[in-house]
Amino acid sequence: MTTPDLEPVLARIDADLPQALERLMDLLRIPSISTDPAYKGACDAAADWLVEDLTSIGFDASKRATPGHPMVLGHAKGQGKHLMFYGHYDVQPVDPLSLWDRAPFDPEVQDTPKGKVIRGRGTSDDKGQLMTFVEACRAWKAVHGTLPARISLFFEGEEESGSPSLIPFMKENAEELTADIALICDTGLFDEETPAITTMLRGLLGEEIVVTGPDKDLHSGMYGGAAINPIRVLSRIIAALHDDSGRITVPGFYDGVPEISDEMMAQWQALGFDDAGFLGEVGLSVPAGESGRSVLEMIWARPTCEVNGIWGGYTGDGFKTVLPSKASAKISFRLVGTQDPVKIRDSFRAMVRSMLPPDCTVEFHGHGTAPASVMSTEDPAFEKARLALSDEWPRPAAFIGSGGSIPIAGYFKQFLGMDAMLIGFGRDDDLIHSPNEKYALESFHKGIRSWARVLAALS
Amino acid sequence: MTTPDLEPVLARIDADLPQALERLMDLLRIPSISTDPAYKGACDAAADWLVEDLTSIGFDASKRATPGHPMVLGHAKGQGKHLMFYGHYDVQPVDPLSLWDRAPFDPEVQDTPKGKVIRGRGTSDDKGQLMTFVEACRAWKAVHGTLPARISLFFEGEEESGSPSLIPFMKENAEELTADIALICDTGLFDEETPAITTMLRGLLGEEIVVTGPDKDLHSGMYGGAAINPIRVLSRIIAALHDDSGRITVPGFYDGVPEISDEMMAQWQALGFDDAGFLGEVGLSVPAGESGRSVLEMIWARPTCEVNGIWGGYTGDGFKTVLPSKASAKISFRLVGTQDPVKIRDSFRAMVRSMLPPDCTVEFHGHGTAPASVMSTEDPAFEKARLALSDEWPRPAAFIGSGGSIPIAGYFKQFLGMDAMLIGFGRDDDLIHSPNEKYALESFHKGIRSWARVLAALS
Repeated sequence: MTTPDLEPVLARIDADLPQALERLMDLLRIPSISTDPAYKGACDAAADWLVEDLTSIGFDASKRATPGHPMVLGHAKGQGKHLMFYGHYDVQPVDPLSLWDRAPFDPEVQDTPKGKVIRGRGTSDDKGQLMTFVEACRAWKAVHGTLPARISLFFEGEEESGSPSLIPFMKENAEELTADIALICDTGLFDEETPAITTMLRGLLGEEIVVTGPDKDLHSGMYGGAAINPIRVLSRIIAALHDDSGRITVPGFYDGVPEISDEMMAQWQALGFDDAGFLGEVGLSVPAGESGRSVLEMIWARPTCEVNGIWGGYTGDGFKTVLPSKASAKISFRLVGTQDPVKIRDSFRAMVRSMLPPDCTVEFHGHGTAPASVMSTEDPAFEKARLALSDEWPRPAAFIGSGGSIPIAGYFKQFLGMDAMLIGFGRDDDLIHSPNEKYALESFHKGIRSWARVLAALS
Repeated sequence: MTTPDLEPVLARIDADLPQALERLMDLLRIPSISTDPAYKGACDAAADWLVEDLTSIGFDASKRATPGHPMVLGHAKGQGKHLMFYGHYDVQPVDPLSLWDRAPFDPEVQDTPKGKVIRGRGTSDDKGQLMTFVEACRAWKAVHGTLPARISLFFEGEEESGSPSLIPFMKENAEELTADIALICDTGLFDEETPAITTMLRGLLGEEIVVTGPDKDLHSGMYGGAAINPIRVLSRIIAALHDDSGRITVPGFYDGVPEISDEMMAQWQALGFDDAGFLGEVGLSVPAGESGRSVLEMIWARPTCEVNGIWGGYTGDGFKTVLPSKASAKISFRLVGTQDPVKIRDSFRAMVRSMLPPDCTVEFHGHGTAPASVMSTEDPAFEKARLALSDEWPRPAAFIGSGGSIPIAGYFKQFLGMDAMLIGFGRDDDLIHSPNEKYALESFHKGIRSWARVLAALS
């Protein structure tokens, strides 16, 4: 569906694509690697470039200092809803440089068997995605002289280095940053033909546990049999965290875990997700989660308990018959719905303590808690955006989940009270964070068109 | 009890102690560190020193070349039983040198609150112990002009560096090395007042297992819940290796595990072993082995299954939400009686395989098998030696077990068909393998007298 307002904007986008590409190339040539102090100047230059570009469109744009790299903010007046768009202008390091087929900051458009791609660091993550939104605004402004909504832009320069300045900046500028809804372009398509709006992101609870038995490492010949072995104790604890049906046994763990609505489940089923292909790609064939659940439910809608690391005793070459003093594990829980990470942490710790045999102690080191982010899709904006995306792409868009945590979405909810629509156009094979990163030219082009449609739909 | 033959020998030992000490000091000054090629000449010099000393006593002594450090053999004719004595002339490295209170190869006799000690590398392990036997022979020869038995001596120079030449040498010289019984002086007293003959040594079976799930490391956000986690699988396997009473669940594992005879159990009980002290020294209070067994049974007479090391996933600082492809553990079994390590290995592997969920594979890396060494204490020589030791020390000697494996005892049994009596005079605080190694002067003096008594008893 197109409206009279939208059609000329889409036409303008098509006509302006070569210039939009040139602008993206300019931004891509700035080596804004945020984690490496040697590129501090480049990060600053990228922020300046954005301020200048946004100003040229008519945004009231400014660079804002932080203890790290600057933020870029831009505001444009408009009618109706206030939309806040987020992206990041910093990029990952490029090592190992020897694996790149061309210089990472000398981007070019290349022909590939799967169509034209823009090759270079930051093309997909996230400069290319960020610019889809900017270009949609530019086209709208060029055609209509104004934007279809009140729009704010928020570009971060520390996303690839842990976002140390983000939360303080959000808190200090809460009023300026708060809008009716946030739009985030840092994710991917469901598949090349199917766009998606991520509406559920799992939360995370990380716990490191250290079980101590004897107060020093012992010789297993001298003490073996009489002394408690903390690796055995830790293994029993880990083994007890799931029952035979794959359910997690921490008391109260499933409080706040919702069932997916029939409507959303229907959307998911319509995606035709390839369970066998998804598992087969990593050498597996049988879904390992709770029995009776589909793979998509397992990764998007069900909570998990995983051991991300375990270590204790002698782990080098050969054999050493040590009976170790300590054994450690890093355990994380992915959370959904309204599961309370603090309650779960307490319950987990109590369960572990209750399983300790005599003479054993346990230390816990919390590694942060984040509840799941579940967007209020009853807001009609979500369905409007979904239909707008469906108009642009071969297959209808779906509200999907994300197995991982995308912190910015949680922060918008937590600190600014905004729901966020995560809409992105990356593909699975974009090699983000890796050598030879690319972004399909189609992602860029249809991405700009998608935002123009979404803006029209939300206006 | 002393016999007319023995009394003058003991008197001679007492009178000759200063000279015996000087000889030991000479040997201690030779820095025969076998593991460090820089000390190859010193190892050779120690062997030469021994050949010369044994020759002076009347042994037919020779240095025998090996691909590594030489062996020293000595033979003396005599009536009755043929006894083979084993010790080693090589010593441990001395690092860190800065922790030594004096130069490691400049030994001296020092006064301590617990009596005089000989301080220096190799005093207790094993030059001081080795010389207790040599000095007993010397005294006997000096008094009687002959030895009370046919005696062979076998000194190794690679014990502290893995004995690479030992088994080939034994096989090549089997006839020359085979006697009625072996005597080994490389162990300790039960306590300062109580000598012991080690008659049971646990065997060892080492297995490294690697469980593989996905064929690459995965992101737990993307795959968590749907992909099998090999750390969880490994933990379940380890947890299942013991039942709640501490018994090992590997099928057939207890085949060949004997109960200790009432007589030996009575000896063990008479030792007054301090369970609480033994465990308390390493921060424990409750014996962790099979219920209903004493601590001495647990460490000497019962088999074990220990995890000596475990690792998988991310083990560095902080958190990484990886869902790893592999998880590994080093597992060892201490064996007793006639447990068959090969059968147990097969049964263990079958059990592990049977516990693997779909999509998981396991690799096993065997790290050697050694059955337990159980000496035939029905040979009257054992009881005679036990009584002879009891005559020398404040408290009666006992036949004891050893939780660890002492390879040489097993090799004598396996390759030469000889039982071995392990009799030593070291103390727990001798700091063997550590800076400031020492040997109590009383261990040296009463050690020589003990061997004189044992020789008399076995003659």
